[in-house]
Amino acid sequence: MNLLKPLKICIITLTLALLSNTVHAQITNDITHNEAFKALLAAKKKAEDSNVLVNIAVVDAGANLKAFIRMDESFLGSIDVAIKKAKTARYFNIDTGKLGELTQPGGIIYNIEHSNDGLITFPGGIPIKNKEGKIIGAIGVSGGTIDQDRAIATAGAASIL
Amino acid sequence: MNLLKPLKICIITLTLALLSNTVHAQITNDITHNEAFKALLAAKKKAEDSNVLVNIAVVDAGANLKAFIRMDESFLGSIDVAIKKAKTARYFNIDTGKLGELTQPGGIIYNIEHSNDGLITFPGGIPIKNKEGKIIGAIGVSGGTIDQDRAIATAGAASIL
Amino acid sequence: MNLLKPLKICIITLTLALLSNTVHAQITNDITHNEAFKALLAAKKKAEDSNVLVNIAVVDAGANLKAFIRMDESFLGSIDVAIKKAKTARYFNIDTGKLGELTQPGGIIYNIEHSNDGLITFPGGIPIKNKEGKIIGAIGVSGGTIDQDRAIATAGAASIL
Amino acid sequence: MNLLKPLKICIITLTLALLSNTVHAQITNDITHNEAFKALLAAKKKAEDSNVLVNIAVVDAGANLKAFIRMDESFLGSIDVAIKKAKTARYFNIDTGKLGELTQPGGIIYNIEHSNDGLITFPGGIPIKNKEGKIIGAIGVSGGTIDQDRAIATAGAASIL
Repeated sequence: MNLLKPLKICIITLTLALLSNTVHAQITNDITHNEAFKALLAAKKKAEDSNVLVNIAVVDAGANLKAFIRMDESFLGSIDVAIKKAKTARYFNIDTGKLGELTQPGGIIYNIEHSNDGLITFPGGIPIKNKEGKIIGAIGVSGGTIDQDRAIATAGAASIL
Repeated sequence: MNLLKPLKICIITLTLALLSNTVHAQITNDITHNEAFKALLAAKKKAEDSNVLVNIAVVDAGANLKAFIRMDESFLGSIDVAIKKAKTARYFNIDTGKLGELTQPGGIIYNIEHSNDGLITFPGGIPIKNKEGKIIGAIGVSGGTIDQDRAIATAGAASIL
Repeated sequence: MNLLKPLKICIITLTLALLSNTVHAQITNDITHNEAFKALLAAKKKAEDSNVLVNIAVVDAGANLKAFIRMDESFLGSIDVAIKKAKTARYFNIDTGKLGELTQPGGIIYNIEHSNDGLITFPGGIPIKNKEGKIIGAIGVSGGTIDQDRAIATAGAASIL
Repeated sequence: MNLLKPLKICIITLTLALLSNTVHAQITNDITHNEAFKALLAAKKKAEDSNVLVNIAVVDAGANLKAFIRMDESFLGSIDVAIKKAKTARYFNIDTGKLGELTQPGGIIYNIEHSNDGLITFPGGIPIKNKEGKIIGAIGVSGGTIDQDRAIATAGAASIL
């Protein structure tokens, strides 16, 4: 009877147990609603200054919706696009536009958009960092050109720094 | 403490307000994003005064999300409940709590909650009317007791009148 | 021309801005994968001791899946039930069985199960707290009777304390 | 430091191992939860050795979730990608990377990703075989580069042989 494998599992289990006695719960930095609001207003101001009508969504560290606004006359279809851009940016801690460079036909993660109930992988989603550089959420913007959306999202994220 | 930015935002807000007095409301009797924002802030203030942590959603005349905020430490599950309360209130132009009286076993619209990707039919969703009494959207609140949620939603809707 | 309302909004905005200058990002305590693993193993041991075949899911502070195991010969339908129990417990920071007492016909939150892509509101989902009493995730168990599921979930959550 | 609990777990694991040597594998050539766990731990070890943060999912012969772990700080978006990679690998008994060669524009199964609630067709999903070469499940890994994900998944699958 071979007891080697279960013994190996035991050693791993013990090591894990020792580790778990010394480490504590993770400390996650999460965006506050005041910060989310601030990012929303900063992005809205940028959109107004640029004469663009957009939807703006902010998600928290857990990729859950924290704040949202849809400007009058902006696209109805942009509600979901803005939210998905924010979620995508936090799901993979990346500018959604950079992700899109990898998901093209022939790209290394082609068609990853089919996961997570639909990702949006063109510009307009940006992770939000705090002053220490930790990602605490993300912002997604939709309604303008992709360059406008990215600039507006960037302005929103920058307002927290 | 830097008050320059908020002051700047204020000046913009005031300018916007002056402008919005000269231009007319959307022809469809649709809530504007400024009104949605105002309802959101009024509801949030009411929640803070009542020491309740809630999620607040505002939808427009088309039952599409217009504005949203989730207060820190409020329930994650309330994001979707708040949005569904607002949508339900506008879908049927009714206080969600009143709708719930009809959806009980034996009720005339028993289990209507299965439609529209899920309705919420307990208190906390309220139609938003303009000064002429026309429904221009709805507000949904989730996180407190059903009485608190309804009171907070009512405060939000009342701020537009 | 009435400038009172926009002025009021301004004062609120300024107050918010002052507040947001003094508060920082939230510190969220999140379960580690070692802790999730430990809860999983403790629940599995309890299930084996009770001669019950179950599915066990652990979600983190953001209600996202952290760890999962399905015991041999346990119900296939329990995969989703266990995950939904864990999510529900974290969505509303509550024992899912207690939530179910409120969702019955005539209950104050009747049919809330239609939100969040489906909630499970009978026993078997329990929030996981750290030693300081902060909720850092949740565990969901499905496959046995509801009493067994709850006892197994409780054993899993208790292992972190 | 208290080693009593992990030691107790070890004794139980060893007893289980002795027992599992006397009972036979499931008739359907299905992966057991002990094997799924073993694959998970082997993949996790490989990930740690390679300094990569990943999500790891194991599905059984029926393509249903059997075991899962998300390493701390790994991508939130990788939960679903890892599960979908494992399912895809078992759905078509293939290395997901090889499937992706056929789903490109002009490919013979172009956009098959739209089926089955979303497939993932880039590397990181690998069928798991038993010693007789029969496919008994699959493993999916997401979080590193596609080469890292594939290597980690391969290490997990290899641990069963």
